Amino acid sequence: MTYSKSASTRAAAIRSTAQLLRAQGYAATGLSDIVKESGVPKGSLYHHFPEGKSEIASAALAATAGRLRSHLEALVASHPGEPVAAVEDFCNRYIEQLEASQFVLGCPVATVSLEYVEGTVQEACGRAFDVILSVLGAALEARGLSKRRAAAASLFTVSAIEGALVLSKAQASTEPLARVRNTLGEYLRSLIANEAAP
Amino acid sequence: MTYSKSASTRAAAIRSTAQLLRAQGYAATGLSDIVKESGVPKGSLYHHFPEGKSEIASAALAATAGRLRSHLEALVASHPGEPVAAVEDFCNRYIEQLEASQFVLGCPVATVSLEYVEGTVQEACGRAFDVILSVLGAALEARGLSKRRAAAASLFTVSAIEGALVLSKAQASTEPLARVRNTLGEYLRSLIANEAAP
Repeated sequence: MTYSKSASTRAAAIRSTAQLLRAQGYAATGLSDIVKESGVPKGSLYHHFPEGKSEIASAALAATAGRLRSHLEALVASHPGEPVAAVEDFCNRYIEQLEASQFVLGCPVATVSLEYVEGTVQEACGRAFDVILSVLGAALEARGLSKRRAAAASLFTVSAIEGALVLSKAQASTEPLARVRNTLGEYLRSLIANEAAP
Repeated sequence: MTYSKSASTRAAAIRSTAQLLRAQGYAATGLSDIVKESGVPKGSLYHHFPEGKSEIASAALAATAGRLRSHLEALVASHPGEPVAAVEDFCNRYIEQLEASQFVLGCPVATVSLEYVEGTVQEACGRAFDVILSVLGAALEARGLSKRRAAAASLFTVSAIEGALVLSKAQASTEPLARVRNTLGEYLRSLIANEAAP
C-alpha cells in the first residue's frame, strides 16, 4: 500500500514535470510549479528526487522518451510497409496539438534541448532523440533502405520536423509544419523508390 | 553627445540581451543578467525600455534578425550562383560556433521561439525567420527555381538546419548538423538540376 502510494506520487510528479517542460521549458519551471501542477508536496518531491529539479526533469524526459517510442511504434504499426505515411501522421498529430494548445505544445524535448542545461538533463534530451531516430530508422530500413541510408533519412526527417515545429511556434501558424510534411513526404517516397530493393 | 551616449547605452543593452537569449533563452534571462552583462544600470534600462524585459527582448531579436540578414546575404554573395554552397557554409559556421562554445551557442532565435512567449517577443521571432526564409528563397529563385519551389525548398532547408541544431545541442555533438548539411546539399543540388531552367 505504502509502496503503491509512493510510486503513484512519483509518477504524478514526473507526469506534471513532463507537461511543464513541454509547455514552457526548463528555466521557467520551478519546483513550486511542479508542486502546484502535481499536488505533490515539496517535501515529498525531495524525498523522491533528492537532487531536486535536474533529477525530476531527467526522469520526466526519460518518461517522455518512453511515450515517444510507444507513440511512434504505434504509428509505424498502423501503416504497415508505409513508413512515410507514419511520418506524415506524426506531423499531423503535432499540427493538431499546436492548434489545440494555441501553439504552446510542440516537441516535448526540444525546448529543454536548446536551453542551457548540462549533465543528466542534457543527456536525457539526447537519449530521447536517439529513441525517435532509431524507431524511424528501423522503419525505413524495413522498407528496403540500406542501414546507412535509413539512418541518414531518419536524421534528416527528425531534423526537418523539429525545425518546422520551431518555425510553427515562432510564426504561430501550422503552415510551416504542414508544408514541411508535404516536402518530406515527396522526398522520402522518391528516396525509397530510387534506393530501396524491389 | 548626450544623444550619442544614450544610443550607445541602448545598443549595449540590446547586444547583451541578444547574446543572453541565444545562450540561455528568455525565461533564464533576468533584467539583472542584462545589467550585469551590459553594464547598463537598471534605471537606464527602464528609461530606454519602459515595458521591461519583453521590450528589450523584442528589440534584441529584431537586431538579431538584421544581423542574420547581413550574414546570410554575405554568404550568398560570396558564392555567386551557388546558393547550395552558401547553405553549407551557413551550417559550417554553426558547427564552428557550437564547438567553440561547448554547445551553448546555436540559433539565436530558436530557444525563445520554443519557450512560452507571447505578443511582441513571439512576433519578433517570427519576423527573424521570415528574414532567413526570404534571403534563402531569393537565392534559390535566382538559381532558376520557380517562386513556389524556391519558397518550399527554403522552408525545408531552414527547418532541417534548425532541427539539426536542436539535435546537436541535445546530443552535444556537431554530427547531426554535419550529416544534415550533407543530405541537404545532395537534396538541393538534385532539386536544382531537375527543376531549374537551364
